[in-house]
Amino acid sequence: MTLTAEARALDLAQTYLETIREGSLDAPGVTRASYGPGERLSHRLAREAAEGLGLEVHVDPIGTLFMTLPGADRSLPAGMIGSHADSVPHGGNFDGAAGVAMGLAVAARLRHLGRRLPRDLTVLAIRAEEMVWFPANYLGSRAAFGLLSPEAPDTLRRSDTGRTLADHMAEEGFEPDFIRQGRASLSAERIAWFLEPHIEQGPVLVEAGLPAAIVTGIRGSLRHRNCRAIGQDAHAGGAPRRSRRDAVIAAARLVAGLDEFWTAEEAAGTDLVCTIGEFFTDATRHAPTRVPGEVRFTLDIRSEDVAALHRAEAWLRGAAAEAKARHGVEVDFGPALHVPPALMDQRLRAALGAAAAEAGVATMAMASGGGHDCATFAGQGVASAMLFIRNDGGSHNPQEAMEMDDFAAAFRIAAGAVERFG
Amino acid sequence: MTLTAEARALDLAQTYLETIREGSLDAPGVTRASYGPGERLSHRLAREAAEGLGLEVHVDPIGTLFMTLPGADRSLPAGMIGSHADSVPHGGNFDGAAGVAMGLAVAARLRHLGRRLPRDLTVLAIRAEEMVWFPANYLGSRAAFGLLSPEAPDTLRRSDTGRTLADHMAEEGFEPDFIRQGRASLSAERIAWFLEPHIEQGPVLVEAGLPAAIVTGIRGSLRHRNCRAIGQDAHAGGAPRRSRRDAVIAAARLVAGLDEFWTAEEAAGTDLVCTIGEFFTDATRHAPTRVPGEVRFTLDIRSEDVAALHRAEAWLRGAAAEAKARHGVEVDFGPALHVPPALMDQRLRAALGAAAAEAGVATMAMASGGGHDCATFAGQGVASAMLFIRNDGGSHNPQEAMEMDDFAAAFRIAAGAVERFG
Repeated sequence: MTLTAEARALDLAQTYLETIREGSLDAPGVTRASYGPGERLSHRLAREAAEGLGLEVHVDPIGTLFMTLPGADRSLPAGMIGSHADSVPHGGNFDGAAGVAMGLAVAARLRHLGRRLPRDLTVLAIRAEEMVWFPANYLGSRAAFGLLSPEAPDTLRRSDTGRTLADHMAEEGFEPDFIRQGRASLSAERIAWFLEPHIEQGPVLVEAGLPAAIVTGIRGSLRHRNCRAIGQDAHAGGAPRRSRRDAVIAAARLVAGLDEFWTAEEAAGTDLVCTIGEFFTDATRHAPTRVPGEVRFTLDIRSEDVAALHRAEAWLRGAAAEAKARHGVEVDFGPALHVPPALMDQRLRAALGAAAAEAGVATMAMASGGGHDCATFAGQGVASAMLFIRNDGGSHNPQEAMEMDDFAAAFRIAAGAVERFG
Repeated sequence: MTLTAEARALDLAQTYLETIREGSLDAPGVTRASYGPGERLSHRLAREAAEGLGLEVHVDPIGTLFMTLPGADRSLPAGMIGSHADSVPHGGNFDGAAGVAMGLAVAARLRHLGRRLPRDLTVLAIRAEEMVWFPANYLGSRAAFGLLSPEAPDTLRRSDTGRTLADHMAEEGFEPDFIRQGRASLSAERIAWFLEPHIEQGPVLVEAGLPAAIVTGIRGSLRHRNCRAIGQDAHAGGAPRRSRRDAVIAAARLVAGLDEFWTAEEAAGTDLVCTIGEFFTDATRHAPTRVPGEVRFTLDIRSEDVAALHRAEAWLRGAAAEAKARHGVEVDFGPALHVPPALMDQRLRAALGAAAAEAGVATMAMASGGGHDCATFAGQGVASAMLFIRNDGGSHNPQEAMEMDDFAAAFRIAAGAVERFG
């Protein structure tokens, strides 16, 4: 009987994932724009699956989909499980959608078993998580919590169309006024816990040979997308060292120094990753025989530990002063974007661990490098947890490759955990 | 009488420089393409000035202009003074031309004084020195010494027209067969000494507040124009440090290490300059949130000391091995271009110093960072020297700014020196 309920639940999840893939194919990969057709399809099919299971279905005015299996005491704050249903352009099928499918499978299993939890279990399909569409972190979950600025619907524009969030919401039948008026459909007091299952976006589980991981925290970030090192152009042969203001050497020293800072922090046990994704002299001005007067670069520094981000920020200020003193090069980091880290709830993590042990699934603990809606919940004080599913090929690209066997292993953990969360 | 001869000589030089500027204006700056109209004009006007002075004029089959003031013993190897007469596109008026003007002025002074040197004095106007036109170092002087490969006329193409050197030579009335047949119009045994006056291409004399410098040597170079650091793209958040193959960090560490190598060499008294003029991630592929999998960069390393260039080459090999070991990043420096350094003749340098002292002109000793035809002469075993003239604004650009007062100071040195060279 148990086996049958689980098999039926997994079958529902697999059918959901295959159907949304077919409906959002955009070779190579799938495209499900925030408040666009692919996302609409993913929500519609989730809703149909939920209705087929007899869940209570509710859609809030911004399009968040709530699919609730009633609990024993309906007055208690609900447990929630789910993720977003949009994707990057030409992305993989599982980033986001796997969490929605997992929520549906967990609810389906309980329904098929006829088991009732002490509180409501709400499967969530969140809107608009992929920042490539609208330039705002966790747009959908922050909107549902009433955390967006009132101007957001009219100032955020979708990267592919140039049209506003308000336009795209209205086109899908939703209400931008909900955001303009600061209303909320989620509030921390009404949520007992939140679990977001998600594919891992890096290679850690593939390298470790494990199907799933219990996330310790979601890294916050310090980002500078418009850094410039400004020195002065000069003749490569004629300018002596003492008169040079070489932007490449100054910026390269800064990068090498940042790598040393990172190495030292990591040796001391700090969770930290640093990325200089872009670093370039100006193609219209540089030449092999000209001392480079300008370099542009980006910085993306992430940690679970907000103190480490503050240390990185202080280190950068010191490095800029050194570039000025040593090379006569001004380093301007430009605007900073801060996203605070989110620690996952210890009790939920322990329950996930116990459920994994019971299911006989080996897991590991790891930080999440990428941001997730779960950070919005944790930031609002909701006890939150994430379960990562092994995924080869990285995410945000068509090579993303989650195996259904790993999804099934993670499902056994999630199914056991929601019963332990209470 | 002496004053008058000098004033007339300087007047001739100034008139020459002003007339070629007017005839080759191409705002901003002047353009005198190798084997093109501006160079043709500079040679024609030099020839007319020489004929006005009664010098013996000869043009070799590749267009090199020989303007000779006969000496006491015409069987002796000649002394030579001069430079090239082409310019970069939109360049300054004095790079090259000042040396031709100086040669004419020195010969004019001797002529006006009625003074006869022990040997012939030949003023040279060389062809095609600026490598921006044809991709070959010191093309004109190497061709005159018979050092170009026989294929050069048919394989070298001018950057602006795409047409071959042979085409452009023929269009100007010269004979590409001279090069194809390996003939020569200059040979070391027939040259007693060579002096190349030239504007300084860097800011050293401006900073030092001196009108002229006596060059110690012309730096050789080790150049790599197509370096690549190859790692692997990865997600900025998800990929942990140990699995990253970050091309920017690896290449930045190499650059920072090269700066350390340079600093240490300079502290030990080595003449060395290092330039990474281009350094860039691929604009079609990089992103602030992606670990960069590839960087391209250039290296231009120069020294008077060939041993220092060899040490730099060995250092680069070690740095590439370290990038591989530490970051899993392959550094491929691509093809190397080696140009050997050329030391200036000690006896000629001493004579220039004595002439400067006699003229009451303060000078300094310095290395030439840029390459000059004089390196071809020195490489052939000709006793060679260079005299740098202060120049603000750098060279190879329209801001180049030599003052005629500084030219006059350098002229007093050159005029005295050619009499001391013997």
